[in-house]
Amino acid sequence: MSRFEPRLQKFREQMEEKGWSGAFLAPSGDMEYLIGVRRQRPHATQGHMHGEWFYGAILTPSDCVFVAPYLAHHFIAREAEDKPWISDVIKIDDGDDIHTLAKQLLDKHGLAGKTLGVPREAMASVVTEIQQVAPGTVFHSSWEITADMRAIKDAEEIELMRNASRTTDAIFDDVRKNLRYGMTETDVMMEVEHQMLKHNTEGSSFVTGIRVKGPGIHDVLEGVSRAGSVEAQPGRVIAFDFGVVLNGYVSDFGRTVHCGEPDAELRRIHGLVMQAQAEGMAAMKAGQITAQDVDKTARSIIAEAGYGPNFFHRLGHGIGIDVHEPPFLAKGDDTVLEAGMCFTVEPSIWVSGKCFTRVEDVVVVGPDGGTSLNEYTREILVL
Amino acid sequence: MSRFEPRLQKFREQMEEKGWSGAFLAPSGDMEYLIGVRRQRPHATQGHMHGEWFYGAILTPSDCVFVAPYLAHHFIAREAEDKPWISDVIKIDDGDDIHTLAKQLLDKHGLAGKTLGVPREAMASVVTEIQQVAPGTVFHSSWEITADMRAIKDAEEIELMRNASRTTDAIFDDVRKNLRYGMTETDVMMEVEHQMLKHNTEGSSFVTGIRVKGPGIHDVLEGVSRAGSVEAQPGRVIAFDFGVVLNGYVSDFGRTVHCGEPDAELRRIHGLVMQAQAEGMAAMKAGQITAQDVDKTARSIIAEAGYGPNFFHRLGHGIGIDVHEPPFLAKGDDTVLEAGMCFTVEPSIWVSGKCFTRVEDVVVVGPDGGTSLNEYTREILVL
Repeated sequence: MSRFEPRLQKFREQMEEKGWSGAFLAPSGDMEYLIGVRRQRPHATQGHMHGEWFYGAILTPSDCVFVAPYLAHHFIAREAEDKPWISDVIKIDDGDDIHTLAKQLLDKHGLAGKTLGVPREAMASVVTEIQQVAPGTVFHSSWEITADMRAIKDAEEIELMRNASRTTDAIFDDVRKNLRYGMTETDVMMEVEHQMLKHNTEGSSFVTGIRVKGPGIHDVLEGVSRAGSVEAQPGRVIAFDFGVVLNGYVSDFGRTVHCGEPDAELRRIHGLVMQAQAEGMAAMKAGQITAQDVDKTARSIIAEAGYGPNFFHRLGHGIGIDVHEPPFLAKGDDTVLEAGMCFTVEPSIWVSGKCFTRVEDVVVVGPDGGTSLNEYTREILVL
Repeated sequence: MSRFEPRLQKFREQMEEKGWSGAFLAPSGDMEYLIGVRRQRPHATQGHMHGEWFYGAILTPSDCVFVAPYLAHHFIAREAEDKPWISDVIKIDDGDDIHTLAKQLLDKHGLAGKTLGVPREAMASVVTEIQQVAPGTVFHSSWEITADMRAIKDAEEIELMRNASRTTDAIFDDVRKNLRYGMTETDVMMEVEHQMLKHNTEGSSFVTGIRVKGPGIHDVLEGVSRAGSVEAQPGRVIAFDFGVVLNGYVSDFGRTVHCGEPDAELRRIHGLVMQAQAEGMAAMKAGQITAQDVDKTARSIIAEAGYGPNFFHRLGHGIGIDVHEPPFLAKGDDTVLEAGMCFTVEPSIWVSGKCFTRVEDVVVVGPDGGTSLNEYTREILVL
């Protein structure tokens, strides 16, 4: 038996408990998790396939039928080949009347006008068009069921996560060998993405972020892209934030490279960030702390040293099939940590005109605290 | 006055005609088109920001208020700076009660329980969560209004499109200089994406597709990625499909490089593909033909030569802010072409075990037929 059958059984049991008649599993992490069919990588601007709002798996208590536009049909048919829980793959061609097809299939499977699950990241048109052909249909996020299931990784998943993280360590090691003064953030980003593919991953798990900060540099951290034209030059720091997809599981990693020997304040900031991460990880004992209290533990180190406002984001997030999954190491999340949960632990200190110092590792919760899946050094790195 | 005020005025007039009380403009091409706020590049796996389902602009007949999670707030606040039609940017922090905030804002703007527009590619959770806090709210795709508006490009937009396409020609020219036997599809893809950034674009507009086909190669065209491990070797062809984002407008381009001198059948196939494209373009006379009849015109060239099933996809698609926009040069689309519409024209012939021969240019509709924005040669290219 594969790892998907028990997941499907559990999901169907919970659908019944919630009174859902079924789910429409559009391409998403939930689709990958529940039925093992992979997503294709997303376009940077919006693509369109005829019938795309009905692209996904119709899941009922007893059946699972996939509907795919012809441009995706080859791929989906191959994905379904070794998955006996998918009973059929229906192809949509240009010119097909999708509204009629959808109505027929929703009626056939007893879903029209009922309560259904849908992945939170499905296209809104999945919901708006189904509500048009089957008025009264109510949608809930499939996350209401899958979030708890996906949060705790089994041994097989942890090995996949470890493999993605160790590969990321190796990628960063190769990137560092090729760093030179004068490279722009974009140059460094290209080198990172080059190494991701050289190491036989499926590519980035999220938009690669390379930020060079230092004296006189006061721009905000994020734009349309996450790397720009600022050059690595003496006195600056290069902050890395990147991860890969490998066998359907992802990594998310961060380190900071100093351009030249860091001064006393940069050393102090580096020490604070590493201490905050270490104390956060140590606190991650299964059954003994909430997600938001891990955030508070790490944050207090930085705040007490006077850099509170400079650590402007949450401490971390769940990670697995998607780069960001519940729970979140953030104010407002009172989930009690359990063994097998995987989180990023990524404190940072951003001082405009001085530095952006960050570290990030993927950490598994255990009885005695968190264990990093990354093994890369946390000592000061100097170019 | 910017190009956004007249668009907003027209959109609001049509909202009123349709009986919509407003729209929720989540990050999308419609958001970029109507209010000029850019999207950030998408993550390959799903990210998550607290409150992300309420990330977007609340648009009413008289107001436009942006709501942004704190991780996006810096970016959005800067985007809004020079846009007086955006009256406020509200920041969501970790721990904030989004459902209460959303209810308050929907009530304040008179939108709860009403009919609203939403971009088709918004997250499904925008719809499911708003319907939860404001029961009875009905959503329609904002595309119902914007599709016709966006389809016809004005002179300023056509210049932006031309610039993106000419830059893509230059990128391809540089890629060709670096092609070598033994490179894998992934190696070529890396070179393409490297040149995109070297030419100061914002990167790819969609997932770069590099396919090497030839004797003995029978795998399907699409996987999780669109480039794999097949090597450029004598007797094979390299099919290119890529485009860039430049100043918010996109390109989409295709050519085929033959590895060594092509045989008679490859030459015949190349000629058919170019002839199909040329006749398709010539037929694109404003007011005189439907989108699906352009497809039919080009397709008949290939079908009559006996390769009908080998041209397995639509002839082309509208293109502008998004890589795929309505109308579509495809069976079932009876839109009459109008001057200023921009389409890709991209016939192909895929013969498993022999070749995948394609061409693609962006073409503007005019009174006497279509004009290509690309100037790259359509002669046979040999490595």
